[in-house]
Amino acid sequence: MQVEIVTIGNEVLSGRTLDTNFAHIARALEEVSVTVGWHTSVGDTVERIGDALRHALGRADAVVVTGGLGPTPDDVTREAVATLLGRPLERDESVLQSIRARAASQGRTLPASVETQALVPRGATLFDNPVGTAPGILVEHDGRPVILMPGVPQEMEAILRESVVPYLRERSGQRVATFTLRTAGTYESRLQEKIGALPAGWPGAMLAYLPGWHGVDLRVTVAGDDGAAVQRVAQQALADLRGVVGAYVYAEGATTMEEVVGARLLARGWRIAVAESCTGGLVTKRLTDVAGSSRYVERGFVTYSNESKVQLLGVRDADLATHGAVSAEVAAQMARGAAERAGAELGVGVTGIAGPDGGTADKPVGTVFIAIHDQQAGTATRQLKMFGTRIAIRERSTQTALDMVRRRLEGLDLAPPRD
Amino acid sequence: MQVEIVTIGNEVLSGRTLDTNFAHIARALEEVSVTVGWHTSVGDTVERIGDALRHALGRADAVVVTGGLGPTPDDVTREAVATLLGRPLERDESVLQSIRARAASQGRTLPASVETQALVPRGATLFDNPVGTAPGILVEHDGRPVILMPGVPQEMEAILRESVVPYLRERSGQRVATFTLRTAGTYESRLQEKIGALPAGWPGAMLAYLPGWHGVDLRVTVAGDDGAAVQRVAQQALADLRGVVGAYVYAEGATTMEEVVGARLLARGWRIAVAESCTGGLVTKRLTDVAGSSRYVERGFVTYSNESKVQLLGVRDADLATHGAVSAEVAAQMARGAAERAGAELGVGVTGIAGPDGGTADKPVGTVFIAIHDQQAGTATRQLKMFGTRIAIRERSTQTALDMVRRRLEGLDLAPPRD
Repeated sequence: MQVEIVTIGNEVLSGRTLDTNFAHIARALEEVSVTVGWHTSVGDTVERIGDALRHALGRADAVVVTGGLGPTPDDVTREAVATLLGRPLERDESVLQSIRARAASQGRTLPASVETQALVPRGATLFDNPVGTAPGILVEHDGRPVILMPGVPQEMEAILRESVVPYLRERSGQRVATFTLRTAGTYESRLQEKIGALPAGWPGAMLAYLPGWHGVDLRVTVAGDDGAAVQRVAQQALADLRGVVGAYVYAEGATTMEEVVGARLLARGWRIAVAESCTGGLVTKRLTDVAGSSRYVERGFVTYSNESKVQLLGVRDADLATHGAVSAEVAAQMARGAAERAGAELGVGVTGIAGPDGGTADKPVGTVFIAIHDQQAGTATRQLKMFGTRIAIRERSTQTALDMVRRRLEGLDLAPPRD
Repeated sequence: MQVEIVTIGNEVLSGRTLDTNFAHIARALEEVSVTVGWHTSVGDTVERIGDALRHALGRADAVVVTGGLGPTPDDVTREAVATLLGRPLERDESVLQSIRARAASQGRTLPASVETQALVPRGATLFDNPVGTAPGILVEHDGRPVILMPGVPQEMEAILRESVVPYLRERSGQRVATFTLRTAGTYESRLQEKIGALPAGWPGAMLAYLPGWHGVDLRVTVAGDDGAAVQRVAQQALADLRGVVGAYVYAEGATTMEEVVGARLLARGWRIAVAESCTGGLVTKRLTDVAGSSRYVERGFVTYSNESKVQLLGVRDADLATHGAVSAEVAAQMARGAAERAGAELGVGVTGIAGPDGGTADKPVGTVFIAIHDQQAGTATRQLKMFGTRIAIRERSTQTALDMVRRRLEGLDLAPPRD
């Protein structure tokens, strides 16, 4: 099954908004072995959208469209589809009710224009939008599905995940097994060295290396006609990969590092306190992204100034003067001070130079010290050298800090193996 | 002049490589008044590339292609163009010489395959590639230029800047002006109500509503033959929009809220201290995303537990007991405590229920109190009702908190107008 993805919107065509919707859809479809053969972007006009859809229907087995379903006059995807496919727009009462109910529950009076989102092409099937007012729309044309989703990323992603991916997977008939191993603390090239030619022994499987700020995800997709064989190959691949790179794996699937850390803290009944300088709150932010994290996040200190490090964490003035704020000594005192002042079982301290300014010959931009403290094991510190932009250095430092917490809680060495 | 951009490559179609080449080309062309009307991506096959180019030549005034000019067997763009346009590939001796000279200067022996890059369609004009071996290629077909560039970003960008942009600017008579107004504190539908039919009075202009967690961006693009008229319309549109929705505008262009807040703090010589509960560090994280923010961010407190609110900020136990941690009283004491304990001129306090659990009938999920304190104006608090997921509530609360800081620093009411 070969799909065309059509993204609609002048903002994407202008190049100022990166087309992340396209990439998100393509990756989600690949996971269920639905191949993307074409991608087209057009602006917000009925004629251009119609032209793009007509061409897509001439070559693809299914067309997935995102954008142009909002309430404003530049949202004309519905109209373009209705015109092209000869299916007049009709008001769907259940959508209208849900739009009104959503408005009422929010205590807002919505302008009448929002109700245009209740217009759907005749004979369409609707996919529920759990986070917004415009539903997903499915129309069959000459045996080919045309699927419309809103362009707001969180709405598109919810409809895609809950309705569109299951629908296309069912329709494609392929058996697919897929898993992801998430690694931290190593590089794509090192993983490739260790994994080598293993994938050649997995019939029907594809291995993708997905590097990002938080590490490298390894995604394996196995496809074939025989469900049992597909499952066998997937299990073999998982065992093989764990055998060679298991020391870097922190999670399977979509589980985040902060979720792993949260589960480990809960399991021990420990609470955590965080002291951050260069990461500016990002470690605590990520820990508290997890629902229910108030059970184990006691507090965070963003000690950007030297005064705040001394006052809030008990960092010694003398060490700030001798070693500087970016030093192993200060990181250790931050971690210990955070735990002790908060009365928490575990403390983390992060101090470094995120740049672009502030580097020296001795401590260039990207120099980061991270310390972990608990009463049983005491305080341990790692020095890291990060590369890249300010954002990259902050994200990588945060991931390393959380991975050190995970390793401490799992009884592992704080640093992953170097070989 | 309306251009189609065609990006070629399986890695882009898989969604794993974001199509930054497309965005780069689109922005560069917009800056010189060349409009991008369509964007298509196809994989590395002669048939699909030919199909995409044929369709592009049927609708666009010019076609700009990137990718598939390398030396490996999956680089087939040359062949596809030669086949489609009936222009056989011929070896260009000057390109061949420059490939060999480049190899010699680097002391490398290049594989023979690299010399395929000297093959160009008959009658083509070449654009010099200052950073690689594959030149840019220009072929005219029925009076329409087809321009080929390599897919390696730095090579593409160099050829684009030095040759393609000047060529297309010369060829296009079109003038374009564009601007973006960023709004916070209101909704897309409400903006649309206020703006109404104003765009009808802007000849050649298009208005796009771009909603996101941090507000709604309004982007206007004006195009026409007469540069002075285009500028006049753009200025009119800007004045009109500022007239009806200026009360919600926090920035123009790509400037972020945290950059605006940082600039305002620097201008006053004020430092800020932040006390966060439900946002868990996200306010401080965003403030410190800005390079140089150590000049005005004094510290942040992530007071997740009640104990931390009392110990670090001086929130009164009695108020926690009477009003609860999520209350106007506690938010105000957090803001004041943050400023006073940090010795900062401005303090912010955020407390709320981000969900999905923890809501009550009285204070449902999404109830958020935000307070601002400074010595001159004292303490002021807003109660908000947010909707959506935990992430959405945290992001929107953070944006609102930063917007309140901006409003205080700009001498505005803390809340935007409600009508």
